[in-house]
Amino acid sequence: MTGPEAADAEDLGTVMHRLMAELYPICRSITGDGVRATLRILQARIPLTMHEVPSGTPVFDWTVPREWNIRDAYVKDSRGERVIDFRRLNLHVVNGSRPVAATMTLEELRPHLHTDPDHPDWVPYRTAYYADTWGFCLSQRAFEALADDRYNVRIDSTLTDGALTYGEYVVPGSSADEVLISCHVCHPSLCNDNLSGIAVTTLLAQRLAMNQFHYTYRFVFLPATIGPITWLSLNQQRLASIKHGLVAANLGDPGKIHYKRTRHGSAEIDQVVEYVLAERGRDHALIDFEPYGYDERQYGSPGINLPVGCLMRTPHGRFPEYHTSADNLDLVRPAALAESLDTYWAVVQVLDANRRYLNLQPMGEPQLGRRGLYTAISGDPESERRRMAVLWVLNLSDGHHTLLDIAKRSGLRFNVIAETAAILRHHGLLDVAGDRR
Amino acid sequence: MTGPEAADAEDLGTVMHRLMAELYPICRSITGDGVRATLRILQARIPLTMHEVPSGTPVFDWTVPREWNIRDAYVKDSRGERVIDFRRLNLHVVNGSRPVAATMTLEELRPHLHTDPDHPDWVPYRTAYYADTWGFCLSQRAFEALADDRYNVRIDSTLTDGALTYGEYVVPGSSADEVLISCHVCHPSLCNDNLSGIAVTTLLAQRLAMNQFHYTYRFVFLPATIGPITWLSLNQQRLASIKHGLVAANLGDPGKIHYKRTRHGSAEIDQVVEYVLAERGRDHALIDFEPYGYDERQYGSPGINLPVGCLMRTPHGRFPEYHTSADNLDLVRPAALAESLDTYWAVVQVLDANRRYLNLQPMGEPQLGRRGLYTAISGDPESERRRMAVLWVLNLSDGHHTLLDIAKRSGLRFNVIAETAAILRHHGLLDVAGDRR
Amino acid sequence: MTGPEAADAEDLGTVMHRLMAELYPICRSITGDGVRATLRILQARIPLTMHEVPSGTPVFDWTVPREWNIRDAYVKDSRGERVIDFRRLNLHVVNGSRPVAATMTLEELRPHLHTDPDHPDWVPYRTAYYADTWGFCLSQRAFEALADDRYNVRIDSTLTDGALTYGEYVVPGSSADEVLISCHVCHPSLCNDNLSGIAVTTLLAQRLAMNQFHYTYRFVFLPATIGPITWLSLNQQRLASIKHGLVAANLGDPGKIHYKRTRHGSAEIDQVVEYVLAERGRDHALIDFEPYGYDERQYGSPGINLPVGCLMRTPHGRFPEYHTSADNLDLVRPAALAESLDTYWAVVQVLDANRRYLNLQPMGEPQLGRRGLYTAISGDPESERRRMAVLWVLNLSDGHHTLLDIAKRSGLRFNVIAETAAILRHHGLLDVAGDRR
Repeated sequence: MTGPEAADAEDLGTVMHRLMAELYPICRSITGDGVRATLRILQARIPLTMHEVPSGTPVFDWTVPREWNIRDAYVKDSRGERVIDFRRLNLHVVNGSRPVAATMTLEELRPHLHTDPDHPDWVPYRTAYYADTWGFCLSQRAFEALADDRYNVRIDSTLTDGALTYGEYVVPGSSADEVLISCHVCHPSLCNDNLSGIAVTTLLAQRLAMNQFHYTYRFVFLPATIGPITWLSLNQQRLASIKHGLVAANLGDPGKIHYKRTRHGSAEIDQVVEYVLAERGRDHALIDFEPYGYDERQYGSPGINLPVGCLMRTPHGRFPEYHTSADNLDLVRPAALAESLDTYWAVVQVLDANRRYLNLQPMGEPQLGRRGLYTAISGDPESERRRMAVLWVLNLSDGHHTLLDIAKRSGLRFNVIAETAAILRHHGLLDVAGDRR
Repeated sequence: MTGPEAADAEDLGTVMHRLMAELYPICRSITGDGVRATLRILQARIPLTMHEVPSGTPVFDWTVPREWNIRDAYVKDSRGERVIDFRRLNLHVVNGSRPVAATMTLEELRPHLHTDPDHPDWVPYRTAYYADTWGFCLSQRAFEALADDRYNVRIDSTLTDGALTYGEYVVPGSSADEVLISCHVCHPSLCNDNLSGIAVTTLLAQRLAMNQFHYTYRFVFLPATIGPITWLSLNQQRLASIKHGLVAANLGDPGKIHYKRTRHGSAEIDQVVEYVLAERGRDHALIDFEPYGYDERQYGSPGINLPVGCLMRTPHGRFPEYHTSADNLDLVRPAALAESLDTYWAVVQVLDANRRYLNLQPMGEPQLGRRGLYTAISGDPESERRRMAVLWVLNLSDGHHTLLDIAKRSGLRFNVIAETAAILRHHGLLDVAGDRR
Repeated sequence: MTGPEAADAEDLGTVMHRLMAELYPICRSITGDGVRATLRILQARIPLTMHEVPSGTPVFDWTVPREWNIRDAYVKDSRGERVIDFRRLNLHVVNGSRPVAATMTLEELRPHLHTDPDHPDWVPYRTAYYADTWGFCLSQRAFEALADDRYNVRIDSTLTDGALTYGEYVVPGSSADEVLISCHVCHPSLCNDNLSGIAVTTLLAQRLAMNQFHYTYRFVFLPATIGPITWLSLNQQRLASIKHGLVAANLGDPGKIHYKRTRHGSAEIDQVVEYVLAERGRDHALIDFEPYGYDERQYGSPGINLPVGCLMRTPHGRFPEYHTSADNLDLVRPAALAESLDTYWAVVQVLDANRRYLNLQPMGEPQLGRRGLYTAISGDPESERRRMAVLWVLNLSDGHHTLLDIAKRSGLRFNVIAETAAILRHHGLLDVAGDRR
């Protein structure tokens, strides 16, 4: 295990890109050995637990599906040449296809072929979960080159009772209150969506584990949709502990960072992410919650209603390579991955330190002078800032304001406010408010 | 009875204009036979009930006044010529004047004559309710033409114990919750104010009665001020059932539509009317509540406080013909009447369908695929919109959001949202929330 | 005692300026005879009570300090000439300095000398409360003129157990609810900060005492910081009665009026002051609360949290003469003082009359005509305004709206609304709502 602390920001991007390259060839799906192989690679970095939920398990309105695995798939022409070959690119088979072994004319084959005419060189990504069907994906150019031949069509897949596999890793904090970080692991050879999310989440977890934090951080690596539904169904007793959450997706493309707010719209995680993005000063975009996108849909369903936002770069469907073979290792950049990890890290710093305090001497100002906390004669801007931070933290630590509220109202930086709170606590002037909302 | 469904929008305007022409000559007042004759004409269209409340009945801070009736009124010059003649235009007599039979000089008559010098050809409309006085109205030009003569002045009116008359028509819906539509019926030969309100209200009632609605719709035809005060006083036990209301006035002039908000300012009826006006995309204006105007003053008094707005075209006093003989059958246009009716109808459509639902599978998304509610592979914008509507309705049907809230938040049209809710309800995924706020 | 009613606005400014001139030479500090002499001069205008709180009394987190008095202080050169002389200007000695009697070189003296190099002709104001130290202040030019000599240094001060002195004057109103007006009295020869506050507060108190008001007005004259902390500590049982408050400071400089909001931000006093400043139409500025400035810091500490704003002209530190010898009798102008008093007076007028009423005939409009409250036929703008005022006051007097709320919502002036409320109350249509929030 290589510690990320050993590497600088540029290096961390490269580390993540290398991890993605290792994961790239695996044919993942919502169930099956592809997910297991993926999680096993991650286990070399973080000690995640692999959970297996049997097919047929009822999970809310759904049922855990049968497990899909695939060994090979191809379309051979009459000369025996693989004109479509799963082994060259796993996107060539519609993910979730039932087994097929047949010979057919092009005419018969055609309804099972999917292309993207707008990008004639790219192979689109299609899925057929929960539908008893099969198909192949290929580039428009390859499609047009198909001769009027008889084709040997073979999908060597199985759809059998097995399990849904997911990974989970918990970094315990001083509090039982949890922060949930969720990414999906069901996409085959696609990089931005969502090997980038897996890579950033893994390195974030690794880094968090090296430090002591207030919150307990729970990382889940799940197939999209059915994954969080299964996890939520099996963990209902845990949901009350989850105070904040983020879905990690599309974190390697060169676009600017986007934050999609939680269903609540101004939850603490929303405030923290918006503050961090504003303070960093780089171009970014804020998006209101909508019930489409990634797994924030499930965390934000009305009966669950957890404050989980989605922190990403370019949203789903808004980059041309989305769900095509062009979402590959060239699209994602080490520098973008590193900046994404950095942003998540900055969010964790603020979120974890954001607390409501109580001024223990709330009647008038406490006498700061005798505690050495008041610089009486000074024109030094830094010590003026410190003094204002002391006064602001004391004034607003009434159990209603978080440190972030105080930072925003005072116009002082969060870290100045947080350090000031620590000093005041050390002097016995502040204590953590009993309840965090 | 001619059904409005038989006619197109242009025709409905003409139908309303013809009804107004029939009502125009009648000399209405806040009591008396003019109101009865008016309501009897409406009874040929809608089966309204005529109520008679005896003079002297205490109604809140007021008392039902004596009944005023008039047969004739004139000012004759010494040659016996009617220089002011009630039979030519009922506006010539101050409405509510006590009987007079006297001969007097111009000097003596002058204090009883009212003109509008700003519009020298128009006869102003004046009233003398609750004041033991009399008078005549005439154009400034006619006034200036009066010779220094002795005049025979006659008002053949009676002010006797009788009744206050009002009309009421209820179209029952599936719910006992009511929508109140109120218009005033006390103005004599004035068209926009307020025969237009009477005509639009009547045709709206006729149209509503042909369909099945959620709410019970109550239409009241009342003399202004004392009418709603009387009705409210006699119907106090009913007020809790009135959930929304509109006052109909000034609906035939060529000006743009104005909506004056309820006293509350953002009641559901306010939201619905504002949504409908915005969606129609025509120029319109929104006005905040003020305690002056039409009978929304009474519905919005602090002890009543019903959410009743006023949906009109040009507000009272803001068109030059207001309360003059120029507010006649030429001022009001069939097309404007038709558009007004259309707007009321659109408001009813949205208001009546606007409900809070509960997602019955609120934990994660329900599995839409097995219900045929999820179009998996589609670039068709319409089916994308349908899918988004499904997801939005499911996500926000938590008992807190109305369908209109969902329409506004999703950016999808109300009727798309309402149809989607009906489909989801049909599939057992939605039910009406127990309580509507 | 000269009554302010006898003088016009210009004269009142002169009266206040003359009072400041009388107070100017006194060497005040946070304790001691300077405060007593000051309050005694004020006692010639208002019958304030002088309170003495013994040194050592615990007050919240603080202790009442020892009492500081000074008779003389100087630095004499070897020729016996006073090169720094307390008797010429009391700012020359660091306020609170411990006694000194020594001979020393310029080198030894220098660390005890304070100048303001940015304004080489001005003597800065420095304090050494709660610090066992001493020093002199002088102009940069005087400092540079000091020869390399041996100096006879003398501060004839005492720091002994005694008392903290403050003044208090209560003008009783019909209600036990109180308005607190607070100014500080600890600055020596400085005019804008804060003899101007003392002068305006004194004349305001004098003027209030000549009239009958709703609220009880409490005026406190306190040393900054330790003063309000002491007062608050000794008057905890009284705090619940204080409904509104203002700190008076910097009221004589030629700058525009600034209002610093209470910690709450939109308390009734904030609304009233903002309304008065807007209505007066002169340039002014509104500042959000921050926990630095004058004694609103103490009143706005989280455990006290009284709605006390600060109504001043130029805020502390924002005029160059601040805390220097240039904050003298030339800086403050009679006209500015008069306008400040005028503004306080206008605030009192609105605040004192601002009440929540209950419409006693809230069901529909009451019949105004039979009470002579309704001008039926009128184009007179003033009587239209009166009628609208009647309707607005009746409509919004539901126990939730203050008269100021009604003024703002109606767009009518507060005094029109307040007079209307008085008339309606006289007619038995209105009564004071039981509870004022």
